[in-house]
Amino acid sequence: MTTKVVVNGYGVVGKRVADAVNCQEDMDVHGIIDIAPTSLVGIANERGYPLFAVSDEARKKMIDVGMDVKGVFEDALQDADIVIDTAPKGITTKNVQIYEKMGIPYIVNGGEKHALTGSSFSALANYRETVGVKKTRVVSCNTTTLCRIFTALKAVSTIDDAFISIVRRGADPVRTSSGPINAIIPVLGGYSHHAPDVNTVIPDLKISSLAVKTSSTLTHVHMIRVKYNNEVSRDSLINSFKATPRIILVSGQKGITDNAQVIELFRDKLRPRNDMFETAIWEDSIFIEGDTAVLIACCHMESVAVPENVDAIRAVLSMEKEPQNSVIKTDKGLGIFQEEADYSIL
Amino acid sequence: MTTKVVVNGYGVVGKRVADAVNCQEDMDVHGIIDIAPTSLVGIANERGYPLFAVSDEARKKMIDVGMDVKGVFEDALQDADIVIDTAPKGITTKNVQIYEKMGIPYIVNGGEKHALTGSSFSALANYRETVGVKKTRVVSCNTTTLCRIFTALKAVSTIDDAFISIVRRGADPVRTSSGPINAIIPVLGGYSHHAPDVNTVIPDLKISSLAVKTSSTLTHVHMIRVKYNNEVSRDSLINSFKATPRIILVSGQKGITDNAQVIELFRDKLRPRNDMFETAIWEDSIFIEGDTAVLIACCHMESVAVPENVDAIRAVLSMEKEPQNSVIKTDKGLGIFQEEADYSIL
Amino acid sequence: MTTKVVVNGYGVVGKRVADAVNCQEDMDVHGIIDIAPTSLVGIANERGYPLFAVSDEARKKMIDVGMDVKGVFEDALQDADIVIDTAPKGITTKNVQIYEKMGIPYIVNGGEKHALTGSSFSALANYRETVGVKKTRVVSCNTTTLCRIFTALKAVSTIDDAFISIVRRGADPVRTSSGPINAIIPVLGGYSHHAPDVNTVIPDLKISSLAVKTSSTLTHVHMIRVKYNNEVSRDSLINSFKATPRIILVSGQKGITDNAQVIELFRDKLRPRNDMFETAIWEDSIFIEGDTAVLIACCHMESVAVPENVDAIRAVLSMEKEPQNSVIKTDKGLGIFQEEADYSIL
Amino acid sequence: MTTKVVVNGYGVVGKRVADAVNCQEDMDVHGIIDIAPTSLVGIANERGYPLFAVSDEARKKMIDVGMDVKGVFEDALQDADIVIDTAPKGITTKNVQIYEKMGIPYIVNGGEKHALTGSSFSALANYRETVGVKKTRVVSCNTTTLCRIFTALKAVSTIDDAFISIVRRGADPVRTSSGPINAIIPVLGGYSHHAPDVNTVIPDLKISSLAVKTSSTLTHVHMIRVKYNNEVSRDSLINSFKATPRIILVSGQKGITDNAQVIELFRDKLRPRNDMFETAIWEDSIFIEGDTAVLIACCHMESVAVPENVDAIRAVLSMEKEPQNSVIKTDKGLGIFQEEADYSIL
Repeated sequence: MTTKVVVNGYGVVGKRVADAVNCQEDMDVHGIIDIAPTSLVGIANERGYPLFAVSDEARKKMIDVGMDVKGVFEDALQDADIVIDTAPKGITTKNVQIYEKMGIPYIVNGGEKHALTGSSFSALANYRETVGVKKTRVVSCNTTTLCRIFTALKAVSTIDDAFISIVRRGADPVRTSSGPINAIIPVLGGYSHHAPDVNTVIPDLKISSLAVKTSSTLTHVHMIRVKYNNEVSRDSLINSFKATPRIILVSGQKGITDNAQVIELFRDKLRPRNDMFETAIWEDSIFIEGDTAVLIACCHMESVAVPENVDAIRAVLSMEKEPQNSVIKTDKGLGIFQEEADYSIL
Repeated sequence: MTTKVVVNGYGVVGKRVADAVNCQEDMDVHGIIDIAPTSLVGIANERGYPLFAVSDEARKKMIDVGMDVKGVFEDALQDADIVIDTAPKGITTKNVQIYEKMGIPYIVNGGEKHALTGSSFSALANYRETVGVKKTRVVSCNTTTLCRIFTALKAVSTIDDAFISIVRRGADPVRTSSGPINAIIPVLGGYSHHAPDVNTVIPDLKISSLAVKTSSTLTHVHMIRVKYNNEVSRDSLINSFKATPRIILVSGQKGITDNAQVIELFRDKLRPRNDMFETAIWEDSIFIEGDTAVLIACCHMESVAVPENVDAIRAVLSMEKEPQNSVIKTDKGLGIFQEEADYSIL
Repeated sequence: MTTKVVVNGYGVVGKRVADAVNCQEDMDVHGIIDIAPTSLVGIANERGYPLFAVSDEARKKMIDVGMDVKGVFEDALQDADIVIDTAPKGITTKNVQIYEKMGIPYIVNGGEKHALTGSSFSALANYRETVGVKKTRVVSCNTTTLCRIFTALKAVSTIDDAFISIVRRGADPVRTSSGPINAIIPVLGGYSHHAPDVNTVIPDLKISSLAVKTSSTLTHVHMIRVKYNNEVSRDSLINSFKATPRIILVSGQKGITDNAQVIELFRDKLRPRNDMFETAIWEDSIFIEGDTAVLIACCHMESVAVPENVDAIRAVLSMEKEPQNSVIKTDKGLGIFQEEADYSIL
Repeated sequence: MTTKVVVNGYGVVGKRVADAVNCQEDMDVHGIIDIAPTSLVGIANERGYPLFAVSDEARKKMIDVGMDVKGVFEDALQDADIVIDTAPKGITTKNVQIYEKMGIPYIVNGGEKHALTGSSFSALANYRETVGVKKTRVVSCNTTTLCRIFTALKAVSTIDDAFISIVRRGADPVRTSSGPINAIIPVLGGYSHHAPDVNTVIPDLKISSLAVKTSSTLTHVHMIRVKYNNEVSRDSLINSFKATPRIILVSGQKGITDNAQVIELFRDKLRPRNDMFETAIWEDSIFIEGDTAVLIACCHMESVAVPENVDAIRAVLSMEKEPQNSVIKTDKGLGIFQEEADYSIL
């Protein structure tokens, strides 16, 4: 008997989570909910996912363009075990009230505030605390990335201080009405929200961050600086990254000199949609000076938190009590299982 | 007994042609030749293609980074039935002398001049003329696209005059040293080379073109204007596009409002590397005023000529005498066979 | 006694028109109206222009950040001879009702429809028809550019047919929330509005156009193709362009190979804000084949229609009856008077 | 008797230094040397600067396109008091040998290594050490910016540790062959060269840096984090920035929310070529937590080191012994003298 998962919102995150759920043996796509009568939402029909409209009005429009619509919002939730909500901000807040009323467990995504669920989730950093909570928030692409990297960095030694500069992509590839073109936009008002967001899952880490937005659609890039309370070796860092699931090392010396090359690598690996579920760290960016380490990483904002969404289902519904059990299942389903990783560290 | 294909150059075009050959039942990847000790060339090993180095020096460097190299240039050509050369300009010219000396049939790609082979190839426009020629040039991404579109446009009525404005992408995604950033670069010196290049495969078409280069990596975009010698109907054009293989219609009304949405559609269709082997025409750009038709199309510069490379193998080696036989095989192998297309028109 | 000009809206167009008015001997900036308490609007104070707020609320906010505000909307219009409205669409429609009620002549800009004023203006194409009309619309940057170019092209011989492909910049430099990043967006639905807009000032020209939007902030680029009813010489075109005011020829052979180089030329000429009030045509893009001519031009969307706004003031208020008188004054004031141009052709 | 300055290279930096020299009362542009027969180099003629070609061959080409060329390389150096070399790397190295042989004092720019002259120059940080040295290197745009900011930051209290993340523009606006388009390129190999370069003029500062390159042409952006050895107040930082020449504060709350708005501000101020000789710091990015301060700044790579080039002339030739004397002259000449700055702190 597999877990019935409804994905509310078939956009950038939702469509990927649906496909990821579909690759898992212990869960199924029970329904997709969306509003748009578009070719991209029509892909749900091509995949064979039961498609539902947010309203009767939306259903009419979707049927008019030839889409196969099974019903509306409430129909999708019938018999569902859990909902992954990937709707736009504001909409999610309203949806959550419905899930609460109907008593359906749910997962929201990183654009939402921690307070909405009172629980935030990172498979590598705090899986056990989320077991059985019935509702949680999978942290954002940037936060998920930082949680993975700091899981690896903390395994090496005690961290006294961490500082991150995030160079954000301006918009996802399909958001063509969004800029900037040619400009760089700083996040003003002091520290960016990313470091405090990491603290929702790793509370004891002293971390702060700044951020800018650039004219790019490929990945976010993180420049990371960590001060340990003692000297560490470069090898210990590299070994820790190799041991940590969902982190890969790439190398400028082997031609992966920028984030376009990183994405090209995953195109060549025939990943669906050129997705990179892993966080990529440039091995030749890792540098140690005494107790201080620096490195540069990148994350694929569209897909990096997708595995965590799958794990969150298992945690929230107590399907797996131990993180490694879920992470291994997820990663095998997604084809990203790493032989050299040490899943027992989770 | 399958045809043994060597792909010389495992870059943007070469790696795609290799994968396309690998999907065909009547041919095999006999060898890949490259020079670079990089992660991207290393993908050839992951795919299981026999990998050869251009020289002993290159082989050494490739082995040093852990690549599995079977031999050098000449080793790859042993027992090969044909070479697809996708090396950079200049290099190809030298390579061709070797193929000639060894008596191996070969195919070069669109960056080269027609004069290099004395034969240019478009599967839809002039397949029969290329049967058995032993060597040909598959025309460029833009020319392949125009040959497809004009195959469909000519089927409607007699064309008196055609004019194309091409908005080129500035560089392929991985060519990150190339610009422009933010600028628009006109092709100066009168008409661009694209229209004359179409005439190498469709000699009797009165066509001219202008072009600019932009800060973009997704697709080329073509604004096309055709004057027929009589009035035509919009439906006749649309029907002709639907009947023509390797052309698809997309629609702004269904949300495919720009070339990022087109590429997203092919990401969602899980095409390898988000490739679009077809030429996409915006259905809602097609407009008729009397004897004049306009339309806007886009082509994926990295992959659009890949099917034609496969067909060119069959033509050059007389493996198939009739274009539809090859095109259907190619398109089935690539997963782009269109039920609604009329392959008999070829 | 100089003409008192109010500029409503101190944004991309308004601030330039104000400076242009300020350079003319027969007119003065009587007032600037805006809503935003920003550093950029604060420049009006640095220039010494009387600044007014759209409302009491706006005035309060502007004063709070230290701006010198003389009054509100209605105060600015007291004693004004004419208003140039450069407010956002929608706002302008409301403003026009106020100007009508107060009986103040006014000029709107190219984003508005012809129907709003029933009159459209191009200094080179239809100045005389606009003398004394009390209200008009200065056509958009692209249309102004085309009116200039076709004034020159028509002077050579009779045009049978004209077709334009416009490659638009995605957004002005300061509109950093607008995209696209990396994508190309076609204007769907058949011909673009540009050609019909040209016909509002040059009614008898057979012209059509297509357009795309790109990730760029520098200029629009026009690919133009004209069919004459007889053979023409390249020299006759070049001479006509040289004779026409507000058109300049640039040359790829002299290093002006793209629109970034064009803008750099005007930066080096120390034009305010790197503005290019002229339309630039690449001399080495001009090509003739029998009765057909092609060329590539670019226009600086932020500033190209600024001289026309100044001329429109003189036309609308009957300050000058003949276009050359106004154009020469405007161009001398702006420092763009061309010795080699033949103003008598207007 | 004014100092005779030759500017070798009339490109991005050279043409600006020439104009800056031209604005100073105690120096004159004695000659410009360049190689290119282009419209942009032709601007030197429009300005009235004596123009020289690098060679007889170059002179011929320049004369062929109508440029006024006074002579060749050696002619320009006759009677010159000093040369500012802004030639491309490699060329400068050769040029320096000629200057040495002829005994002419010279200044090279930031692309060169410290070792080439054994002296590096920042007007605010080490003017006095450079007085009379006969040759120096004006540090790069990024280093000049950091030297200014750290002059201000050091004035507040003792700095224990500084870390900078630099988001570089991909290319200057005119370098349209350079990318990246859409990608982000990390500087690999550990710390970037920027921090060590700061140490060539401020040796005792503990500073390190990382950097990435983006698809942008406007400015570099610096994310800066400083740890003091005690608590500091935000006001003390702001006051120090206000007191420091060549630093300005901009504010997102007043609409200057990104670097395009910063540049727009300088376009509106009618700065030549929209140049920003000052370093801009976002006031609302400045944030203090205990002993740690963060801030975000941007510098206009094309022009920021221009004032320093002027000062370097006075230092190298002992024209002024005290930095404030030179800085005040330079800034008045350039129109960037700040009433509120405290030049006596230099």
